[in-house]
Amino acid sequence: MKAKKLVVIGGSAAGAKAAAKARRIDQKAEITLIQKEPDLSMASCGYPYYVGGVFDDRSLLLATPTGVVRDPGFFLKTKNIKALTQTEAVAVDREKKTVTCTDLKTGTQNVVDYDKLVMCTGASAALPPIPGLELDGVTTLLSMADTDYLRKVRDEKKVNHAVVMGGGLIGVEACEALKESGISVTLVEMAPDILTFLDPQLAGLAANHIKSKGVEVITSTGIKAFLGEAGKLVAVKLQDDTIIYCETAVVATGVRPNVKLAREAGLAIGELGGLLVNEHMVSSDPDIYAAGDCVEIKHLITGKNVLAPMGDLANLQGRVAGENAVCGNSVVFEGTIHTSICKIFDFAAGSAGLTEKSAAQNNIDNIETVVNASPDKPGFMGAGLLISKILVDKSSKRILGYQCVGNGDVSRQLATAAMAIQGEMTLDRLVCADLPYAPPFSLAIDHFIASAHIIENKLKGRLKTITAEEVAKKIKSGEKPFLLDGRGPDEHEVLRLGIGEKYIPVGGLRTRLDELPTDKDAEIICFCKISLRGYETALILEENGWANVKVMEGGIVAWPYVRER
Amino acid sequence: MKAKKLVVIGGSAAGAKAAAKARRIDQKAEITLIQKEPDLSMASCGYPYYVGGVFDDRSLLLATPTGVVRDPGFFLKTKNIKALTQTEAVAVDREKKTVTCTDLKTGTQNVVDYDKLVMCTGASAALPPIPGLELDGVTTLLSMADTDYLRKVRDEKKVNHAVVMGGGLIGVEACEALKESGISVTLVEMAPDILTFLDPQLAGLAANHIKSKGVEVITSTGIKAFLGEAGKLVAVKLQDDTIIYCETAVVATGVRPNVKLAREAGLAIGELGGLLVNEHMVSSDPDIYAAGDCVEIKHLITGKNVLAPMGDLANLQGRVAGENAVCGNSVVFEGTIHTSICKIFDFAAGSAGLTEKSAAQNNIDNIETVVNASPDKPGFMGAGLLISKILVDKSSKRILGYQCVGNGDVSRQLATAAMAIQGEMTLDRLVCADLPYAPPFSLAIDHFIASAHIIENKLKGRLKTITAEEVAKKIKSGEKPFLLDGRGPDEHEVLRLGIGEKYIPVGGLRTRLDELPTDKDAEIICFCKISLRGYETALILEENGWANVKVMEGGIVAWPYVRER
Repeated sequence: MKAKKLVVIGGSAAGAKAAAKARRIDQKAEITLIQKEPDLSMASCGYPYYVGGVFDDRSLLLATPTGVVRDPGFFLKTKNIKALTQTEAVAVDREKKTVTCTDLKTGTQNVVDYDKLVMCTGASAALPPIPGLELDGVTTLLSMADTDYLRKVRDEKKVNHAVVMGGGLIGVEACEALKESGISVTLVEMAPDILTFLDPQLAGLAANHIKSKGVEVITSTGIKAFLGEAGKLVAVKLQDDTIIYCETAVVATGVRPNVKLAREAGLAIGELGGLLVNEHMVSSDPDIYAAGDCVEIKHLITGKNVLAPMGDLANLQGRVAGENAVCGNSVVFEGTIHTSICKIFDFAAGSAGLTEKSAAQNNIDNIETVVNASPDKPGFMGAGLLISKILVDKSSKRILGYQCVGNGDVSRQLATAAMAIQGEMTLDRLVCADLPYAPPFSLAIDHFIASAHIIENKLKGRLKTITAEEVAKKIKSGEKPFLLDGRGPDEHEVLRLGIGEKYIPVGGLRTRLDELPTDKDAEIICFCKISLRGYETALILEENGWANVKVMEGGIVAWPYVRER
Repeated sequence: MKAKKLVVIGGSAAGAKAAAKARRIDQKAEITLIQKEPDLSMASCGYPYYVGGVFDDRSLLLATPTGVVRDPGFFLKTKNIKALTQTEAVAVDREKKTVTCTDLKTGTQNVVDYDKLVMCTGASAALPPIPGLELDGVTTLLSMADTDYLRKVRDEKKVNHAVVMGGGLIGVEACEALKESGISVTLVEMAPDILTFLDPQLAGLAANHIKSKGVEVITSTGIKAFLGEAGKLVAVKLQDDTIIYCETAVVATGVRPNVKLAREAGLAIGELGGLLVNEHMVSSDPDIYAAGDCVEIKHLITGKNVLAPMGDLANLQGRVAGENAVCGNSVVFEGTIHTSICKIFDFAAGSAGLTEKSAAQNNIDNIETVVNASPDKPGFMGAGLLISKILVDKSSKRILGYQCVGNGDVSRQLATAAMAIQGEMTLDRLVCADLPYAPPFSLAIDHFIASAHIIENKLKGRLKTITAEEVAKKIKSGEKPFLLDGRGPDEHEVLRLGIGEKYIPVGGLRTRLDELPTDKDAEIICFCKISLRGYETALILEENGWANVKVMEGGIVAWPYVRER
């Protein structure tokens, strides 16, 4: 049998993976990897950590775990893959089954034949249409070149202030990297909240943590222009005409799929601008596969196509494309639940499945949510805090979404939730899940299981709750609900909301009921640090005849607004 | 309606939880908690960490997260639960529906009526029938009294050597606690391996880590006697008559359910010695519930009854028993998959679902397993190592078990696996699972997903593997397979097996094939540090005609035997 000719366009995550997987399955195939950039298999998700000085050896971004740089020599010797770097694929002729490439070093063109083609053309910055993007000092954080530029900013110590435009994953990671480099930073986000994969309350908590590290966070405001002198950035002008002086600006306003080549070749492009593929990662041409940031994939809950430019998914898709390209369409990439996580200084924040916001956008409204706050493990083991929001379908009781922020072990929580969502598990199973427990790792009732318990109580009508957002809205509108803080005096000393609340420790409540409103229909909102005692407070009041008692979800630690101290 | 009388026997994990849950649902019920010990709601899983000096404030073992000690006053004021401590339930009259109690402080007896009874009588040490258990210096690590005793051992600094009998969870935790207290320790385990929830290879790796911390580990040897002088422990005598001098010995040979009270009351007891309950936690008497270490529960994979004396399950069972006791049998505790985890110095080790060993014990043999080793996150982020074993059903491709050890983030891996097993997920879903990825938290292809990839390759016949155990057996029996180490020279310098292997770095292999056996049917076993390059090595050999090539699962880091360096 003649050796199959496989051509892969793109040598970052999806492309390199597709080529490597194809080679492992088919030792005879002729595999050619066409890569526009000078490097291969870049650990692009690691760029912010090199910029921020977590490590100083640039080559680690390009090397195998044992330190071998993944250059064309490595690909040839170890994997028998011909990798052409600084080579741009400029045209695909689907009839002749050829790819025309330009060698960017020499300008010469050549043509490569294929039997099967895998397109992993990635995504590029979706730059906003504002003046000054060309100024020296304005950059993205998407390539090795960007990374080298920002690392130089760190190392030269000449920049005093930087502005990050966009509060998504990369924007927040860029903030941390610059701040950790000793640069003062302003984060500007046009939307009302940063980290749009979170609902506003949790995003607010993440923003508070960023602010606590000395980063200025400006939301609901766009950037109107980058201002320069002699070609160099000197300031940004906000939409409200505020001027922020800065020598560096990182534009992190998202990416869009690179589909020019595919479009010109006549391949089907989706409504979101990504290459259309089926579950086998086959494009509208049966001999052309595609994977990574350039494609649209299926959201496993909504069933709709989405863009999900994430390094892990790119690898998984590349693996499927590579296997199917050499041995027929036998394996499947199912889709995504938009699982994400990012480190934010001492915090982590992430989401899996639907948020309340994304559920609404998809007209999924038969849902219930609850915010839960607790330590991640016993206090005596040095606990961190977790604040999470769980979302379930009211009819099927299936878990559809989970978000978590805090300085505790957010990663484990999200991994647990991601599997529960993908396993289509229902509440009746989650409430008695058997998770790994020992004091160094979790509470006896793990935070995730406790979240399931709380929403079960809510669905059974045993727990009437109100969110911090709703409480804040009431107070802003002049309503005066009776707010009851069930914590002890020493706790008030350290931290309190300061919105007119009454303090009665839950242990003393049964003897101090005369301090409550005489009107048994008065709205009473109970809380404590995390609202476990708030729950007990509410039960005592109901037992004693008050009929309109609510618990504020997540308590004080989940309150994303200004607190008294 | 008359207030329901609920009596709960046992005030540790399950009992206290049952009472608290019942109260939250039924504010009118009369709830009495009968507790033999002086304390309530003890964080018993935290005992080893107090002994080992992770924290010094004993009261944290008995307090709420905000530092309120859970004494009878707390239970009364906060939960309106009458807690009788140092009170032993000595008889249950099921006809009269009464519990007879003895006040252990005064010796007086009284009788408490119940409408519903919840028995959470826990478990006690299963002590071995050997002489000397009564000596001063011999203890278990199951109670606050044991904990106080061992903490005194730590604080007084008079003990030089301690022996721990039993290499299960508590034994290993006791080892660490004593060692961290500056005491030299010998761990003696009668079985061939410690940590029987792991298969031998992974247990061996955990044992190696313990040894690397200076603890002597003796396996396949029991203790014949504790030897004393003037009532004080001075040594232990092993079954081979070896004498180990020591001033302290911790007996950690497991626990057995406390069912005397239940048995005398005529309740059904199972073959394993635990109280029999249904999924509602109802015993053979419809008015008597039971929960915690005293009951048998269902294993969710085998369907058989098991004993699973774990603090987290006790809490979850107590919650179900408490709810059902006050409002009818509406909620369910499904069972266990024997999820466990323990910290072992800088390592963690755990398991969820079936091991190869437990599968065999349950006559489940249509399974495939693979050992996988990899970093938990990129090296530039300060990676730890994970070595895991995944077990799937060959027909359904369902994941049935997962074990993991290492100094990486074992907790997240096990939580992921536990949910995947309980979600009855199959390999085709696991290989493209959407887990939370960012470099501070995981690899782009998470270790768990990679484990699924490897076993998928194995099941598809693309990867022929051999375990470290099988290699060791071959070498011991005098077989001389050709062993090929595909790592680079600098890696050999640091670490090598030293069992006659040949070194050819994978990158140079294609040009050095003449150094391989001329017999194309010769058995060749490839490996590297973690056996990813071992896999590539094997593929190159197969491409070049060798027909009997295997990859050693997990590579050098998963080799549990003596290594050359």
